[in-house]
Formats: sequence, structure tokens, C-alpha cells
Amino acid sequence: MTITKQTGQVTAVADGTVVTPEGFQAAGVNAGLRYSKNDLGVILCDVPASAAAVYTQSHFQAAPLKVTQASLAVEQKLQAVIVNRPCANACTGAQGLKDAYEMRELCAKQFGLALHHVAVASTGVIGEYLPMEKIRAGIKQLVPGVTMADAEAFQTAILTTDTVMKRACYQTTIDGKTVTVGGAAKGSGMIHPNMATMLAFITTDANVSSPVLHAALRSITDVSFNQITVDGDTSTNDMVVVMASGLAGNDELTPDHPDWENFYEALRKTCEDLAKQIAKDGEGATKLIEVRVRGAKTDEEAKKIAKQIVGSNLVKTAVYGADANWGRIIGAIGYSDAEVNPDNVDVAIGPMVMLKGSEPQPFSEEEAAAYLQQETVVIEVDLHIGDGVGVAWGCDLTYDYVKINASYRT
Amino acid sequence: MTITKQTGQVTAVADGTVVTPEGFQAAGVNAGLRYSKNDLGVILCDVPASAAAVYTQSHFQAAPLKVTQASLAVEQKLQAVIVNRPCANACTGAQGLKDAYEMRELCAKQFGLALHHVAVASTGVIGEYLPMEKIRAGIKQLVPGVTMADAEAFQTAILTTDTVMKRACYQTTIDGKTVTVGGAAKGSGMIHPNMATMLAFITTDANVSSPVLHAALRSITDVSFNQITVDGDTSTNDMVVVMASGLAGNDELTPDHPDWENFYEALRKTCEDLAKQIAKDGEGATKLIEVRVRGAKTDEEAKKIAKQIVGSNLVKTAVYGADANWGRIIGAIGYSDAEVNPDNVDVAIGPMVMLKGSEPQPFSEEEAAAYLQQETVVIEVDLHIGDGVGVAWGCDLTYDYVKINASYRT
Repeated sequence: MTITKQTGQVTAVADGTVVTPEGFQAAGVNAGLRYSKNDLGVILCDVPASAAAVYTQSHFQAAPLKVTQASLAVEQKLQAVIVNRPCANACTGAQGLKDAYEMRELCAKQFGLALHHVAVASTGVIGEYLPMEKIRAGIKQLVPGVTMADAEAFQTAILTTDTVMKRACYQTTIDGKTVTVGGAAKGSGMIHPNMATMLAFITTDANVSSPVLHAALRSITDVSFNQITVDGDTSTNDMVVVMASGLAGNDELTPDHPDWENFYEALRKTCEDLAKQIAKDGEGATKLIEVRVRGAKTDEEAKKIAKQIVGSNLVKTAVYGADANWGRIIGAIGYSDAEVNPDNVDVAIGPMVMLKGSEPQPFSEEEAAAYLQQETVVIEVDLHIGDGVGVAWGCDLTYDYVKINASYRT
Repeated sequence: MTITKQTGQVTAVADGTVVTPEGFQAAGVNAGLRYSKNDLGVILCDVPASAAAVYTQSHFQAAPLKVTQASLAVEQKLQAVIVNRPCANACTGAQGLKDAYEMRELCAKQFGLALHHVAVASTGVIGEYLPMEKIRAGIKQLVPGVTMADAEAFQTAILTTDTVMKRACYQTTIDGKTVTVGGAAKGSGMIHPNMATMLAFITTDANVSSPVLHAALRSITDVSFNQITVDGDTSTNDMVVVMASGLAGNDELTPDHPDWENFYEALRKTCEDLAKQIAKDGEGATKLIEVRVRGAKTDEEAKKIAKQIVGSNLVKTAVYGADANWGRIIGAIGYSDAEVNPDNVDVAIGPMVMLKGSEPQPFSEEEAAAYLQQETVVIEVDLHIGDGVGVAWGCDLTYDYVKINASYRT
């Protein structure tokens, strides 16, 4: 295990995955659901884990999300999560719900688990039924393990238009014990938080109760997954699930525990890391865009404006074209319902200040174009109203986004 | 004058323009502001006309909008509107405001008008200063007239990334007199009502007071210009101005006048016609998309959902690719904050019902693909909740949208 980066009390684990925390295994197989690639995966825990989840805010929650909610409602514990692509099992009516419940039952039977200890997730096309014959056969082939190959088999089984696997892993120390948080995610289009879909699965060996885990996850989701956008479209299937095996052996974590911040930060970093990977791998994207807003009335308003800027098609195409058209950033701030003083706004692209106190500043077009050709583009805005800060992540809008989405089903 | 289309009490005038109503002249010249095309235009009225305007809701209203508001504040009358491209004179601070006031003064002087009878509009790049030397010289070259060539000189002087001129003209009868409404507009990108920019200029010879005209314009804007979207980005410069010369000689119009509906309908049709022309000429667009929502709780919610669907990048790319991926329509409805019953929604693309009572319906992929290749694509949604109806217009998202916007300034 290589340790690469030290941030506060948290350490990034370069080759860490969802199976790095104690007690977790994973698998992925090709069940032949559409292509000849992995399309069915599972994460399994040695024990019933404390668990929590957050779901899409769409009116049309997909069937698997309803089943996962039913599972968690019983005792807020999970021992497995079963996932398939590229069928979202969304808008599939009564049959779709029946299929999702059967998928849960098949997984429970395969690994000898209680029904309510299994979560279900799906991603892909909306409005198509699951090919249940293939799901039934596929689940029987799943043999979880703890190697990097097992983790990658899972990581690939959940992708749709993604071009890269997404994983993250951070460690910290609690009561003198090493606690690890690992995660896997998918998502490339319909991302705002988040459709066709964004899924994230996070494992940890921390000893923490489900309600405390849930509160931390909700708070962290607001500053990580909920702050990314690829295309402004929110999915019917978005879900983030976290499972805590408790096998690290620390005293039970609550916000009063002296090392609480370490755990929170490890969980936050894992989520932010995965969120940024999703934004960077946005459909057709060539660049990650990070927008930092400060001086807003509240953090809420700063986050909203940051997301509005990073979600603007005109900002995204300008970044793609390496064109320092900062007027489009102003455009996006302009239609926000947050408090803005139009006579005192600063805008910078990378190190170049383009607007100060709402007066245009001279800058070198060549330097700006060079900066905009980098892999990560940072846009900073100061509203000079209050102390609110917020960050959001997105990507540029390219020909390939159009290409990918003009023929997604066909 | 060819009469083509009879709708209720209103008749479309096929070759009508802003100079068709009694009392109006127009001109457009090339002032050399950037290219060798017309870039400075004026509409002139023989008398001070009753006038009203609606403006962008952006926090950053451009300087010309502030000047127009100052003009209208005096006695709600206008006799001329002077327009330039391709510099929006937005985010240009104190200098920009001074320039816009000077533009008003130059126009008033040129045509012997009171300062407060002149409105100013600009469209183009945000954050650049007006080349005032060229504006000064250009205004002196403006010689308004009443021919189609004069109207077209104006119509072309206001375009930016537009590929076609936008004009509309409708006639009706009030007190036995013919009353005409004519309009010109521009807009192709930053349309959501709307930035880099949407402008519309409407003339009529109806006898109607400014406050009544303003109320009618606001109500009509909500179901026409405010219901179009090209890219979800709202401009700093959007403005719709209407001038009524009163020269048709009808009795003064109020909502109590027996022919009020005729006038309202002529004005509404002119606005809807121009709005649809803008949506259809959206940057890079190949198709007009019309979304009709019924069964919503209120008209407000129906309009909001219609606009959300027509604004979804994923819906827009699917229409471009002629892919009947109706799940994306559900996606866009799903993230609305309007009231939705996820278990009872109908979705149709053209004549093909794809979802009924939230159950997927079989349809022919070939027929759907053929339908989606037409110039106008109609999407219909029934929410089965109430009586609310709403319509919105947009366009498909294509490679050319990205191409145009990756290098707009350069």
C-alpha cells in the first residue's frame, strides 16, 4: 500500500479501493446484459454493517432505490449491495419493482444473507425492463474477493458512458487504530446530482452507528456529490451508499469523539475525490472545471452560484475553446436568485483577474488561452457581500458530449 | 401586402415588418464596429409613441437597459430606439453607462427628438467598451425609410450569431379600423430569456396608453419570450420594447374595449411568432422543439416543466440524434419542483405515446426516428393532476452549438 499525500489527519491511499477497509469483498462479472463487459457487481461485508444512503431528489425514483430504502428501513444495516448496468430499471412500473425485489432476493440467497441486509442499484437506460434471466444466471457467478482485481471487476461492472473507473481511499487514526474509508463510483452524464446515473459505494471499517453515519453522509454529500454537474440533468437512479463494518476496533464514533474530525475528513475526502473524478470524466469532457465562490451572503448561496457557473453551457464551451470569455461567468452569476451587488464583483480565471469591483481589467489573451488549455481550470468569484464560500466542479462541453448523447441508446 | 393565414380575428401579414404599422420608419448601416455588415440600426416613429418595455432579470443589467429605463421613466413615450451589435456594453462600469447616454444623445440630435424619447439597446460580447468614434460617425449615416429594404437593413443590423432575420406582422380590426402590429427580433445563444442576447422591437399603430400596453406586454412575454430556451443562459441585455403610434385612429384601447381581445391576440401572435423564430434559429440548431404540458396543478407549473424539458441537454441531444429516448423527458420532469405524481404520467413524442399512466408503451423505433427527423418536433406530457397547461420552445443541441461557442469572441 503506497501512501502519497498527507492532508491534516488524513492520508490518501494511492491504490486503495472499496475492499481496503477491513471486512469487505467485491466482485464483478459479465452477465451478458448488453455488451461483453462486466455488468453485474457486488460489494459484500463479513458482518452486517452500519449503513446509510442518500438518493436522487427526482420525482421518479427508480425501483432499486425503493428496494434499498425498504431494506434500510428495517434496521439500518447492510451486508451487500448488488448493482447492474446498463438498464436503470426506472419508469418500469409494477414489473420493474418486482424485478428489483427479486434481484435483492437472489443476492441474499447467493450469499446467505437476510433480505433486508441487501441494497440494490441499477444504472443505464430509463424505461427498459431488466433481463431477469441473465440477472439470475449472473448473480450465481459472483465470487467476491479482496484483491485489487476483485475491486476492479466491481468498478468496471458499474460504468455506463464513463471512460475511466472511479475509486478513492483515505486513512486516518481513531483511538490509535487505523481506520480506512474506500469508495467506488460511476457517473459521466445526467450528472447534476445526477442521472443515467451517478452511483457511489463507500466502505469503511470504522465503528460508527447508522444514524451518525447518515448525518455525516448527508452533510458531506451537500459539499461533494451535490456540487458537481455535467449537464444539468438529474437522474432517477442516483444513490450514494456507505457501509461501516466496525472492524477497525475503535470506540464508537459520534461527533463528541475526540477523533471525530479525522473520520469526517476521511469520509469527506473520499466523497470529494470521487465527485471530482465523475466531473472530470463528464461525457465528452477534456477538462475539469473548479469554481470557487467567496464573499456570498451564505455558504448556501455561494454553492448555488458556483454550481450555476460550472453548469453554464456557455462557460463550458468557452473553456473547451480556451476562450477567456469572462462575460459568460457574469451571465451565469446574473441569473442566480442569490444576493449579488452588480457594482462590486471580482472574477478571475486562474491567476488572471478579469473583473475587479465590476470594472473590466486588462489581461493577456495569450496567457489566458494557455491557462485554459490546462487539464484543470479554476474560476474564482468574489461577491464582496458576506462570508459565504462554496466550490463546485464540472467539465467542458465538447463535440463528443453531443456525439455520445445523440445516440446513447442506439 | 400578401395575407396568408387567418387565426380568429387576427390575420398574419406575410411580408409585414416593423415599418408596416402607420407612422414607423427604420434604417440600418454598417458603422464598421467589427465586420463589414450592418451593425447599427434605428426605428423611428413620426410621433411620440406610447411605449413599454420588459428587461432581463439578470443582476447585471447592461448600460443601455439602464438608459432605456431612464427614458421611459419620464413620460412612458418613445420616438426612436437605437441599437448596435456586436458589443453588449454590459459590465463596462461607469464608462459604459456614459457611452450609452451619449448614444441616446447622438440619436436624439440626429432626428430632432427629446432625449427621453429615445431608447438604447446593444447586443454582443460582454465586458468590451463601445467604439464611440464609430458610433458617432455611424449615427449620422442613418436615413430611415418605410420600404422592405429599410426594414431589412434594420433587421440585419441587430443580429449576432443569428443565421436568419426575425420579423413578424399581424393585423386585426378595432372600431372598424385596421390595426397592425409589426416586430423584429434577434437572438440565437444565451437564450433563456436571455443572453448575448435576445432583443425584440415591436411597433403598432394602435391607439393605446403606455400603462395598458405595458400590462399586455408583461402578460404576453410570460407565454412567449419567457418560454423559449436555447442554452439555459440568461442575458444581461435582453429587452423587448413596444411602441404604439396611435395612428390607426381607433378609440383608445383598454381591456374593457369590445375589440380588446383582437389587439391582445395580434400582439401575442407577433411575440409568439418572434419567440419561435429565435428558438428555431438557436445556435447550431437543426430543429424546433415544442413541448406542451397539460394536467399540471397550475399553468405556472406546466410552463416551468415545459421549459425544463425543452432546456434539457439530454433531451436536446436525443432530438438531434433522432433517438426516441423518452426516459430523458422523464428525467427532466423528475427534477422539477412542481407537483408530479410519478405513478401517473403520460409522455408522447409526436403521435407516438411512449409512456401511459407511467407504464412504458410499445412503439415503432423506425416511425419514431422518422418523426424525429422533421423540422419541428412536438413533445406532449400529461401530468393528470389539474388543469394547468403550458408550452415552451427550444431547439436541438448539436456539434455546431459547441463550435460556435468554443470560439465566440475569436
